[in-house]
Amino acid sequence: MSGFDEATRAVRVDENTYDVHLDPGYAVGGPLNGGYLLAVLLRAVVDASPHEHPVTTSAQFLRVAPPGPARVRLEPLKSGKTVTMTRATLLQDDVPLIETLVTTATLNDVVPDWSDGPAAAIPPIEECLRLPVPDPSSGMTLSERTELAFDPPTVGWLDGRPTGRPEVRAYFRLTESKEPDPYVLAMAVDCLPPVIFSAGARGWAPTVDLTWHLRALPAPGWLTLLGSGRLIGDGWFDEEVEVWDSAGRLVAQSRQLARVGRG
Amino acid sequence: MSGFDEATRAVRVDENTYDVHLDPGYAVGGPLNGGYLLAVLLRAVVDASPHEHPVTTSAQFLRVAPPGPARVRLEPLKSGKTVTMTRATLLQDDVPLIETLVTTATLNDVVPDWSDGPAAAIPPIEECLRLPVPDPSSGMTLSERTELAFDPPTVGWLDGRPTGRPEVRAYFRLTESKEPDPYVLAMAVDCLPPVIFSAGARGWAPTVDLTWHLRALPAPGWLTLLGSGRLIGDGWFDEEVEVWDSAGRLVAQSRQLARVGRG
Repeated sequence: MSGFDEATRAVRVDENTYDVHLDPGYAVGGPLNGGYLLAVLLRAVVDASPHEHPVTTSAQFLRVAPPGPARVRLEPLKSGKTVTMTRATLLQDDVPLIETLVTTATLNDVVPDWSDGPAAAIPPIEECLRLPVPDPSSGMTLSERTELAFDPPTVGWLDGRPTGRPEVRAYFRLTESKEPDPYVLAMAVDCLPPVIFSAGARGWAPTVDLTWHLRALPAPGWLTLLGSGRLIGDGWFDEEVEVWDSAGRLVAQSRQLARVGRG
Repeated sequence: MSGFDEATRAVRVDENTYDVHLDPGYAVGGPLNGGYLLAVLLRAVVDASPHEHPVTTSAQFLRVAPPGPARVRLEPLKSGKTVTMTRATLLQDDVPLIETLVTTATLNDVVPDWSDGPAAAIPPIEECLRLPVPDPSSGMTLSERTELAFDPPTVGWLDGRPTGRPEVRAYFRLTESKEPDPYVLAMAVDCLPPVIFSAGARGWAPTVDLTWHLRALPAPGWLTLLGSGRLIGDGWFDEEVEVWDSAGRLVAQSRQLARVGRG
């Protein structure tokens, strides 16, 4: 079992309750990464579903989550031949941290009827940038678990040269030798720096809600994450991430609405 | 009070319960339009919130809704200075039809810090097409309540000339003299023909989940709806709608995942 599988394990207590342990290795400063938390929650949802894959997930982030024991509570909403719909809540000490609505279904490995191309181009991985390892005191443990190679201009903000528009693009994989699966995708859609950093903003940008769709099962190898936004204003911004696999297929789409940080 | 306001009225029963009446005038065949149902539900959510606007709405469509009396049940999740989060369920005879997670906040009428341009161009409204009024036996009552003027190629499928890619673009307003507001936007994001009709598909395309974000309060006048999709495959497709107001501002963004029809 991979470290990621172990860190997202959900242990069945009864048909609607799962015990989980939130792993300190997926933190961004104090709080844990929201995508990691969704991966944990989705393990429970899928385990309880007659279907195999988390096709749609809509999440509201109520509170930040510190590491430690937690629980996933399920409420079955509807189950049919094609889809099962579930409400799932991640709680710590009975306090809800994340509320979600999840649709599970079983995807088949078929050629798409129609697919658009990637939303943006990214140079070959050899021309992309790895960021310096953060100081251990930063609590950015997630950066040890994930490898990101950035399209250079989209991290120009690190040197005071933001591109002036919300965007970030990178290749992504887990540091350990585990190939991508739907749970890795749940984390991947939320593990880029906020797109607004490229537009000149800084600081903690709390996600209010995030919806992501699993569109296909990812092939082994690097994932490509294409992040962008459409509007920044009145303290809010949207962030969209498309995930393409190494076989050139769109495997996940996300959009989140978040607050602009005051950093 | 406008017809739309009346048709979306939510009458408080107690702090977490609202009575509503689903109006037969917003039907697409037998079932009611999903966006209309969201507008009804959001009226109750906002009435119960200390904030003024439904900023994010994530909905799962469990069952189609016929006209008649219904109820909205609220479950407060979190309320703070900036946002209030609520779970809201639309029910008929105690059977849930739509499950949602909604974030309310109060938007201010400010100039955006940054905005991208529209996702696609649309010709002037004089060059756009009105569709023939559907036969009353079709049950498409929604088309009497709304005015749509289509970018001609994106309804070429009506004459057997689909563009070959998922897309549909139109100007939109209510037939009655009511200017757009957030509830009209909730309906607008779900009242175009499915984008896959332009890609050659036909038939009832049931929405599984729909998430939309209110980004600004719309100016009076026509709205512009820009619909597109990224991937059609394995019986699923995504549909995204951007809504721009007459002042040239992005006022709403939606994405839904739906099933390809078998028509």
